[in-house]
Amino acid sequence: MKIESLKGTRDFLPSQAALREYMEETILSCYRENGFRRIMTPAIEDIENLDKSDGGENLNLIFRIMKRGDKLEKALETGGELCDMGLRYDLTLPLSRYYCANRAKLEMPFKCIQLDRVYRAERPQKGRLREFVQCDIDIIGDSSPNCEAELITVTAKALSRLDIGSFTVRINDRRILNSTLLKCGFAEEQLTSVCISLDKLDKIGAEGVAQELSDKGFSAGAINSLSEIFRRLPLSADEISELAGEEAAAGMISIIKSAEALSEGKFTIEPDLSLVRGQGYYTGTVFEIKSDKFSGSVAGGGRYDGLIGKFIGENIPACGFSIGFERIFEILSEMGRQGSGRKRIAYIYSGDFPAAFAAAEKLRAEYDVSMFLRPKKMKSFLDRLAASGFSGFATESDEDIRLFSE
Amino acid sequence: MKIESLKGTRDFLPSQAALREYMEETILSCYRENGFRRIMTPAIEDIENLDKSDGGENLNLIFRIMKRGDKLEKALETGGELCDMGLRYDLTLPLSRYYCANRAKLEMPFKCIQLDRVYRAERPQKGRLREFVQCDIDIIGDSSPNCEAELITVTAKALSRLDIGSFTVRINDRRILNSTLLKCGFAEEQLTSVCISLDKLDKIGAEGVAQELSDKGFSAGAINSLSEIFRRLPLSADEISELAGEEAAAGMISIIKSAEALSEGKFTIEPDLSLVRGQGYYTGTVFEIKSDKFSGSVAGGGRYDGLIGKFIGENIPACGFSIGFERIFEILSEMGRQGSGRKRIAYIYSGDFPAAFAAAEKLRAEYDVSMFLRPKKMKSFLDRLAASGFSGFATESDEDIRLFSE
Repeated sequence: MKIESLKGTRDFLPSQAALREYMEETILSCYRENGFRRIMTPAIEDIENLDKSDGGENLNLIFRIMKRGDKLEKALETGGELCDMGLRYDLTLPLSRYYCANRAKLEMPFKCIQLDRVYRAERPQKGRLREFVQCDIDIIGDSSPNCEAELITVTAKALSRLDIGSFTVRINDRRILNSTLLKCGFAEEQLTSVCISLDKLDKIGAEGVAQELSDKGFSAGAINSLSEIFRRLPLSADEISELAGEEAAAGMISIIKSAEALSEGKFTIEPDLSLVRGQGYYTGTVFEIKSDKFSGSVAGGGRYDGLIGKFIGENIPACGFSIGFERIFEILSEMGRQGSGRKRIAYIYSGDFPAAFAAAEKLRAEYDVSMFLRPKKMKSFLDRLAASGFSGFATESDEDIRLFSE
Repeated sequence: MKIESLKGTRDFLPSQAALREYMEETILSCYRENGFRRIMTPAIEDIENLDKSDGGENLNLIFRIMKRGDKLEKALETGGELCDMGLRYDLTLPLSRYYCANRAKLEMPFKCIQLDRVYRAERPQKGRLREFVQCDIDIIGDSSPNCEAELITVTAKALSRLDIGSFTVRINDRRILNSTLLKCGFAEEQLTSVCISLDKLDKIGAEGVAQELSDKGFSAGAINSLSEIFRRLPLSADEISELAGEEAAAGMISIIKSAEALSEGKFTIEPDLSLVRGQGYYTGTVFEIKSDKFSGSVAGGGRYDGLIGKFIGENIPACGFSIGFERIFEILSEMGRQGSGRKRIAYIYSGDFPAAFAAAEKLRAEYDVSMFLRPKKMKSFLDRLAASGFSGFATESDEDIRLFSE
């Protein structure tokens, strides 16, 4: 049997689990204070829901669960579909389904928190996990750009409490991006493909994107117009207004102004016309947060006004922001940060369990107390306790706590 | 697309999620105080690890995840194994793997907590979930019966804090059970099959078990001897000593005495010779907790001294106790219990988001404050807020909080 966890998954040691619990509690309490409420949904979803969910590239990364028993046998015989469920690739699709199933019982607008595991069959490589935690807040049933401002402000507040250092919020609007691309000369039906290339700007640079668009056979004129805009990036809010028209840009500019006014100098927010975000379900604003010091995105989100409509045929506005829990866990680990918690004390006893437990219990008002049978080699045992983070110990014969630091 | 969650899985409303969070925090803080430390492992495991894990009936309930890409195509062509991973059916197998992979970095004996989701492809029916949460404590590397006493005492303490009402701990020992069955006249190689039938005692009664054993073709003499013992159940500790020999029963009796001494009248503990527990990996003591008022088991566990050896060829003693989180959630829900948390206040504003956010922020020292744009119909909006659990509201024009109860 194999002792390592599967590629792309991780075992967490007690000290790491403590840091993750601290992160969870810090984020959740911030979100709760701001009026968001936790919900929980299953990690497994109907495979059709996942396959039809407009998740962009993520649809190729779904872990599929096989049918069982007679249904599997029949599918194997007839060459039918072998799977009936899959592991969710994000928390937005399950939330959309959840909202439709439960909306009679939910507040409107509905402001919720999710903190949970998601799964993607990424090619295993450094930093690419196949099982990872996301923490999302969403507002469903409100089309005002104040939602975006609120989600950005509250997410930034949570990141500030985690003390990850300075960061930058980048914001774009799919509608502005689309109208810009149309102006450049791309056709409506080419936009998805153009955006997929554009999304690689960070990785392959402006020239790489232009090359890829050219390889895809798009017109040189449109590519040149787009490259011209690239050379002028980042555009200011005013330049974007000019490019896309005041009306189209008004929502995004109001979001930027609101978030800026509340930033307290803890983060900067700037428009980024090249920001795409991979998911196909975004319909308007998209945003992303990057640490100023550490690479990679620490949060991402946007407006997805069409996704809930896929379930119930009625369009319900929705917008969400997702914290990349794993990237932040790596950053805090790199910073040497630890979880919170009380001091840990060992209570060492020889045999009479009830008496020892009662004695240890008295110390538990102040400490986390772990009971151990007296080992043969006391000295080396105590050394190991100290090395593994215990603060001290007590014994039956000497119930005063002896701290290792003394 | 389907709006209901998959059969055997559940969506949790905000009030339910709050109760679950309260349960998690109550259990975890109790376990932490007692010196156990949380670890986290992936929900997906190598399919071979799961298939070879001695999980008894649970091995038939594994959700299997399909291979992807070239590997899947090759398997389909050659008729090879289609799956490479599966969802874990419990937390004991992943812990055993985890311990082997990480033991150089772990304390010894290792006392840990897990609280996480597990999956079983049960036939969907009332109370049978396919995705559910378990919360386990385990002690690895210690063969003393004090481990069992500690696990029982600490688990009972957590259940008492959750205030689920009175409950009973039932305890047995696989070795005593086996020697009793051998004495009755069953053969060594028949014991697993006999135990599978015996495990149904609660459901089909002593006569049902005898009938099933008879249908399986076991000797009438052995069945009669066993039925004779059934008629005398429950046996006292002394009777068990007599039946199994003092030495064999000594461990179990010491566990019972220890747990009794620490029970503070909050629970009873009694030997139960008919207790089997389904998993094949148990090697010694097994135990289970049942509420005295509500049906079904709320916790179960036992000693599994052989499981870790399957990974590293070296037997390491291990013992664990698992709380059935979902059954307790149902019981507390039935009792009308709720999560803890601060009062929720709505802050209703008209347009200027930054000013409103700053005003709401002042109230957040004391309340969870959710911001809402002023609705067209204020009266019905407020009625809905009150109905969904808000304690009151404030507005831009009147920042004093108006409680709905006033």
